[in-house]
Amino acid sequence: MNKRGLLYEGKAKKMYATDDPNLVLAEYIDQATALNGKKKVEIDHKGALNNQITSHIFGYLKTQGIASHFVDQISETEQLLKKVKIIPLEVVVRNLASGHFETKFDVPHLMRFEAPIVEFYYKSDALDDPFINDAQIIALKIASAEQIAELKAKALQVNEALIPFFKALKLTLVDFKLEFGLDENNQILLADEISPDTARLVDQTTHMSLDKDIFRKGLGDLIPAYEEVLKRIQDKENADVHR
Amino acid sequence: MNKRGLLYEGKAKKMYATDDPNLVLAEYIDQATALNGKKKVEIDHKGALNNQITSHIFGYLKTQGIASHFVDQISETEQLLKKVKIIPLEVVVRNLASGHFETKFDVPHLMRFEAPIVEFYYKSDALDDPFINDAQIIALKIASAEQIAELKAKALQVNEALIPFFKALKLTLVDFKLEFGLDENNQILLADEISPDTARLVDQTTHMSLDKDIFRKGLGDLIPAYEEVLKRIQDKENADVHR
Repeated sequence: MNKRGLLYEGKAKKMYATDDPNLVLAEYIDQATALNGKKKVEIDHKGALNNQITSHIFGYLKTQGIASHFVDQISETEQLLKKVKIIPLEVVVRNLASGHFETKFDVPHLMRFEAPIVEFYYKSDALDDPFINDAQIIALKIASAEQIAELKAKALQVNEALIPFFKALKLTLVDFKLEFGLDENNQILLADEISPDTARLVDQTTHMSLDKDIFRKGLGDLIPAYEEVLKRIQDKENADVHR
Repeated sequence: MNKRGLLYEGKAKKMYATDDPNLVLAEYIDQATALNGKKKVEIDHKGALNNQITSHIFGYLKTQGIASHFVDQISETEQLLKKVKIIPLEVVVRNLASGHFETKFDVPHLMRFEAPIVEFYYKSDALDDPFINDAQIIALKIASAEQIAELKAKALQVNEALIPFFKALKLTLVDFKLEFGLDENNQILLADEISPDTARLVDQTTHMSLDKDIFRKGLGDLIPAYEEVLKRIQDKENADVHR
C-alpha cells in the first residue's frame, strides 16, 4: 500500500491518502501535547510506542466484537485504517475520578463511580473543545439522538472490554477518550487511538500513573511508562499464545 | 401567618419560617446580582416587582396543571410557599441562543433551536455552579435517572406553557432557569421564581431585552423594563377577566 498525499496533521498523528480511496494511513509522530496543544514537546520513540499499543488494543477489541477503523499495523509507526468521517465529539468514559472531573467537582482523587460516566466534548480548537450535553449536540446538529445513544452504548462496550484487558496487566483503567467516525455506509466505527495518551492507567501495585499524566504533571519521562505498558501487553499475548 | 426566624438568605430572596412547619415565607429583596454574585447592587422596588411577576406566573402555571411550591402572594414583597428541599440543580431551558450558550458555541444571537435545549448546572457557590450532564448527576448522587427524566419533562412542560403566555404579551421567551424541590412525600415541585431575573424576554416589536441582561450588560435601568413586564401581565389578566 503506497503512502500518498498528506490529508491532515493532528497533535499525535499524520494522516495520508493511499492508493485505495477507502483506506488511509496513520503515521504516529513523536510529539506530546497537553492543554489542547498549548504545551507541546517532541519525545523520541513515542509515536512507535503508541502505534504498537493502539494496534494491539484495536486488535483485541475486534476479538470482542467491537468494530473499528483499524485494518493493520504496517510499520513501527504506521497503521492502515478504513477511511471514516470523524464525528466531532470526544467521548470520555470515566470509572474513577481524575483530571478535569476531579478538579471541577472537587471530589477525591480516584474516587470510584458506581456506574461509569460518559461525557461528550465538542471537538473544536476555536472553541477549546467545550463540554456539551445531548440536547446541545442535537440542537447544533453535531449528531442525532439515535447517534448519541449509539455512541454512548459503544463507549460503554469498549469500557467493559478494556477493564478486564488492563486488569490482566495489573493496570486500573481510570478513564479514557474515544473518537468515532462514519464509514461509507454511515455506520459508526470506533476510530482514532487508544493509548496512554488517551487513557489514564494506574499500576495496581505502585499506584503510579503509566500514561500522559506524567507529561501533563511534569512527573518525569513518559517513555519508560509507555514501554512498560507495551511490554505487559506483549508478555500477556505471548503467554496467551503459549498456553 | 406569622413570620418567624430567617432560614436562608439568597441573592434575591430571604426565606423565613412560619407558624406552620410545612410553609415558609419568601421575601423578595431589592438586590441584583450577576456573575454568580460577583456583581451586586441594590435596586429599589426590584423585590416587589419580581414578587408580583413570579406570583402571577406561578398562578398561571397552576391553571395549566403545573404544580409548584407557590401558595399565595401575601404582601407586595412576600409569598407564602410550601416548604420543599431544593434539588441542587439549576435547570435551564433555551429556545433561542443567548448569553452563555451564544458565547460558548459561537452561534448567532437569538438563533432559534428546532427543539428546546435543557441544561443542568450544579448549584454550588464553591464550585461556581458547573455545567453538569446526566451521568455526572447520577454518579455524584445529586439526583436519580428517574428524577432527571422528570425534571426535564417538567421543565419542557413549563416552557410549553410559558411560550404562549409571553407571546400574548408580545414577548419572546428566549431562555429561563428553573429550580425544583422535593415536598414531604418526595414529589418534585417547581420552586424558586420565574421573573425577568431568571428568564430572558425580548420585546417582539422593539427587540429590546426586558430582563436582567439590562443589568448584566450595563444597558441602563432595570426597573422600567420590569415594570413594563408586570404591566403587560396585569393588562392581559384584566382583559381576560372582563372578556
